[in-house]
This record gives sequence, C-alpha cells and structure tokens, in this order.
Amino acid sequence: MSLLVVGTVAFDSIETPYGKVDQVVGGAATYISLSASYFTNQIHLVSVIGDDFPQSTLSDLSRRGVDLEGLQIRKGEKSFFWSGKYHNDLNTRDTLITDLNVLADFDPILPEKYKHASYVMLGNLTPAVQRRVLDQLVTKPRLVAMDTMNFWMDQALDELLDVIKRVDLLTINDEEARQLTGEYSLVKAAQKILTMGPHILVIKKGEHGALLFMRDEDDQEVHIFYAPAMPLMDVFDPTGAGDTFAGGMIGYLAQTDDLSFENLKRALVYGSAMASFCVEKFSVERLTELDVPQILERIEKFRHLVHFDRDKA
Amino acid sequence: MSLLVVGTVAFDSIETPYGKVDQVVGGAATYISLSASYFTNQIHLVSVIGDDFPQSTLSDLSRRGVDLEGLQIRKGEKSFFWSGKYHNDLNTRDTLITDLNVLADFDPILPEKYKHASYVMLGNLTPAVQRRVLDQLVTKPRLVAMDTMNFWMDQALDELLDVIKRVDLLTINDEEARQLTGEYSLVKAAQKILTMGPHILVIKKGEHGALLFMRDEDDQEVHIFYAPAMPLMDVFDPTGAGDTFAGGMIGYLAQTDDLSFENLKRALVYGSAMASFCVEKFSVERLTELDVPQILERIEKFRHLVHFDRDKA
Repeated sequence: MSLLVVGTVAFDSIETPYGKVDQVVGGAATYISLSASYFTNQIHLVSVIGDDFPQSTLSDLSRRGVDLEGLQIRKGEKSFFWSGKYHNDLNTRDTLITDLNVLADFDPILPEKYKHASYVMLGNLTPAVQRRVLDQLVTKPRLVAMDTMNFWMDQALDELLDVIKRVDLLTINDEEARQLTGEYSLVKAAQKILTMGPHILVIKKGEHGALLFMRDEDDQEVHIFYAPAMPLMDVFDPTGAGDTFAGGMIGYLAQTDDLSFENLKRALVYGSAMASFCVEKFSVERLTELDVPQILERIEKFRHLVHFDRDKA
Repeated sequence: MSLLVVGTVAFDSIETPYGKVDQVVGGAATYISLSASYFTNQIHLVSVIGDDFPQSTLSDLSRRGVDLEGLQIRKGEKSFFWSGKYHNDLNTRDTLITDLNVLADFDPILPEKYKHASYVMLGNLTPAVQRRVLDQLVTKPRLVAMDTMNFWMDQALDELLDVIKRVDLLTINDEEARQLTGEYSLVKAAQKILTMGPHILVIKKGEHGALLFMRDEDDQEVHIFYAPAMPLMDVFDPTGAGDTFAGGMIGYLAQTDDLSFENLKRALVYGSAMASFCVEKFSVERLTELDVPQILERIEKFRHLVHFDRDKA
C-alpha cells in the first residue's frame, strides 16, 4: 500500500564518543523513508530542501521507490541543519546548532496522487505543518501515524493536541508521555493519551525498548505489548533511531495492510530491528546497505531474546 | 532441592509518594525467603536479629518451610534498621538512616545440615560474610548465586572480587555492572564479568526489566535473554523488589533443578513476576498473601507481553 511520509530532509553534524561527522545526510523523513523502503516501494515524500542537497542521495531514494514529487527544492536556499553532541552514555545529547533555513516557512503541498495515500506517517515537525498535510487528504487513510516531541508541548500545545486528536497512532518517548499527561506511570499516561484521539500508542524508551498500547474498539480494553531494544556491543550514533523505528513500523504495516494487534506487535519488532541497525554506523549509512535476509535474521534474534516456554518440555 | 539463603532480616521505615510506614519487616533474606517459599519448602536461613523482632513473622516463615536454625537471635540487642525516602519517580531514593546494630559483628555460623545445601543465595551483605558462608560448605552446591551492590565496590573491592570468583551466578544492577567493569555497553560489561568467575550474569534494570547472560561451557558463546518488568498502574513501594526477584529466580531453580539456558529464562520470568507483586504494597505484605494460581496467571501475562508470531498466520 502507498505510504505518505512528511518530515525533515536535512544535514546533520554529529559528535559521539566514537567520532565526528560534518554535514552528513539526516532528517526525520530521510530516516523514515529509507527504513520503510525495505517494506514498500510506494513511498510519497513531502519535505523541503535547498539546492545544496546531494543529488546522489535523492537518486538513491528514487531508486528505492521513494517518490520525490512532493519534495520542494528551493533555489539559492540552504537545507535544514542540525548539529549535536552526544554525552558518553549516548542517551543524552546537547543540541549545538539548529538552522531552520528552508524549513522556516515550509508549506507542504501534496501532489494529487499523494492525497489518496493508504498510510500516512507525520514525522516530527511543527504541528501546523502536520495539520496542513492532513487537511489536504481526499480519502481517509487506513492509518495515520504521528511522531512529535517535547518542544511542541512547550511551544504549541493547543495546536499539537488538535493534530493528536486526528491521528490513529502516536509515537512519543517516555518522558514526553509523562509531560503530555502529568502521569509518571506509563500505563496511566497511556490510558490518558488513548482518550485524546489515537487508539494506538507507542512509547519509545530508547535503549530500554518500546511499549505498544492499543485500545480495543469493541470492549475498550487496553492491550499491551513490549518490544526490547537489541542489546548491542556498541551504539555508534543514535541519531535517527526513533525515526528509523517509526519507518520500519509503518513500512511493515503498509506492506501487510493488517491492523490487528498481532500484526502491530510484529510491526513494533520490525521497527526495533531497523533501529538496531541504524545506530551501528553514523548517519544513514547502515540503512543504505541492508537486505531482507539480514533484517529477517535480526527479527529472529529478537524472538530468541524474549521468547520463553512457559512449561518445561 | 534445599536452598541456603544468607542476608539481612531487618526493620525498614519507608516513605514513598503513596505513604509512609514505620518499623516494618524488611531485609534481603526476608524478601528472598518469602519469594522462594512459593517454589521450595526446604529453605535454610542464615541471618541475625535482635530480640525486638516479631515472633509472628518468624512463625510465618517457619510455616512456609523456612528453617530458622541458622537465624541468630541476640538477647538485648536490636535488629538491623534501614530508613529511606523514595523520590517521585520511585526509581531513586535517599537513605535516611542505616543502623547496623546486630549486623555490625555478624559471624554467620552454618548448622550441620545447611552445609550440604544444593542451592545457595548470598544476599547483599559485606563480602567477608558471604565468603565465610562459602567457606563452611562441605559439598559443592549445584549453584551458588550472589547479589551485591556498589557500596561494596567502593569499600571492599578486593574482597568482593574474591567472592565473585567463587560464584556461578551474579546479580547486579546496570549501573553496578558499569562500575565494576568500566564499560558503558552492558554487553561488553557482561562479557568482562563472565571472565571474573560466574558463568551466569543477571543485570537488573528496575522498571526496565532484567538481562540474562550465560556463557556456554562448550563453545564459550554468550547467550542473551531479556525479561521485561511488568508495566504497572502504580508502583507502591519498590523496597525489596530486587531481592524478591532473586528469591523467585533461585526458588524456581531449586524447585526444578535444571540449569539449562531454557530453564534459566523461565527462572528470570518467575523472578520478574514475583517482583511485580512485591511493589504493589508496602513491605512484605503482598508476598505473604499470594498463591500459585495468581503467580501462574502473571507468568501468562508476561508471555503475552513479549511473545509475537514471526510470521502471519
């Protein structure tokens, strides 16, 4: 099924305890699209860049089935730029520079064929842009998923809540779930969020995995599933891991077109598997060199990591 | 199989966001023994208390199959006392008072029948006391497990390393694993610890679950398993959760007497299930009112929490 992806396509400069890279390819929509491209080749990208962006990256995205008709290229302007430095634990980071550039007045315009997308992934962006995308959809998608962050809770809470109201699936991290609801217990936070609009919630806990909550439309019962993060020898660069997770999850859903709880579980594991690859190298490098057998092998590792037989054989 | 448990039997005063209790029953060996008593009724307790300890608690332990011959009762002296206050996140706490009392010069003396225990759980205590217990064993146990904490790494590292060298299974938390090895990656930390003596390592991550590492004796490969913590509406009082986890794990192993990786996985899940009960009420209250069907029901919840079908039906 077709997948509409909205988000940043950008440059990053990143420093981790393992090294430093300057002006490498980044951006939420880049990570989401690359990750999803292993599952579906009908990806409609909506974003904006300057004329400084490498043609080789754009050609690679096209080759992978990412439609770039909705990617605005602004002549003489610069692409969004983010620079950050990770602490030694790789779980926390300082933002050094955020240059909005072309993103400052971004107005997403959907080409006609994008308006009938079956699956929609609203990457982390100002809620006003996310809403503008939803407003242009002509047919109701099978699923609208949305990512956001604490920055928008601080800066544009009302607009954010308006968009949250209109989506089926929300992904946020644990601290953001607590901030959004005022509840420390993630179970209580989830119950509140599931009354705000979405009936599916994914709480990302970084190296501690991710929790899936789904409210059953029939009996209103909340089902819970937990996918761990893969314990790794080295986390080289966590940039884009959350977006890669979202891309793997929504890509798998677009591929299988099955929104049952059992299939959402699998989608969460596929997302975790893709994220576990992403952090193994800087930038999007690892995401451009995978193949399906490698992904399936990692899914199998996840199964071994958590599965146990309740009873002795 | 018989299980020898060494550790504190004590009084706690605890404050959490949910309330405050004074002079309630606590201590590592108390939590371990109560938790293990749901799986084996051949528990040999080694500890020391003053004559201020409630007879009703001792009678209850006896009734549950905990042999108290190795519990020294010092006339006219006071039991070990700990007082702490949890922060709002319930993951961090301040110790307000630690009165060693009878523990200050505790010399563990094993009754004859204790010296042939099949399973041994060394609860968190000064490494010198843990070593004294090991020195008195006459037959080699099937498994010696040990818990410890960062305090001993700071105060008595050499003695601690000497005891670690002699045990089969070590349980510590994630920060302690990092401190002990100087490795931030838990996979790397585990690999180092598995060269220090133990061939089984359990890294406890509190609300984020627990990781099991086992070095295969044949090919030296390290196997990994992850058991999540149960997402709960409320964590009422986390005191004793780690000891309850260890007690459930070692109790299940003593019951099943099977040290295969598959059975260790189950033991970890049983430990997690027992810990998930422990935190639901203050002190040991929840651990005194359980029954086997309740425990099996929670094991089933853990299975649902993490199991997924790799392929669509």
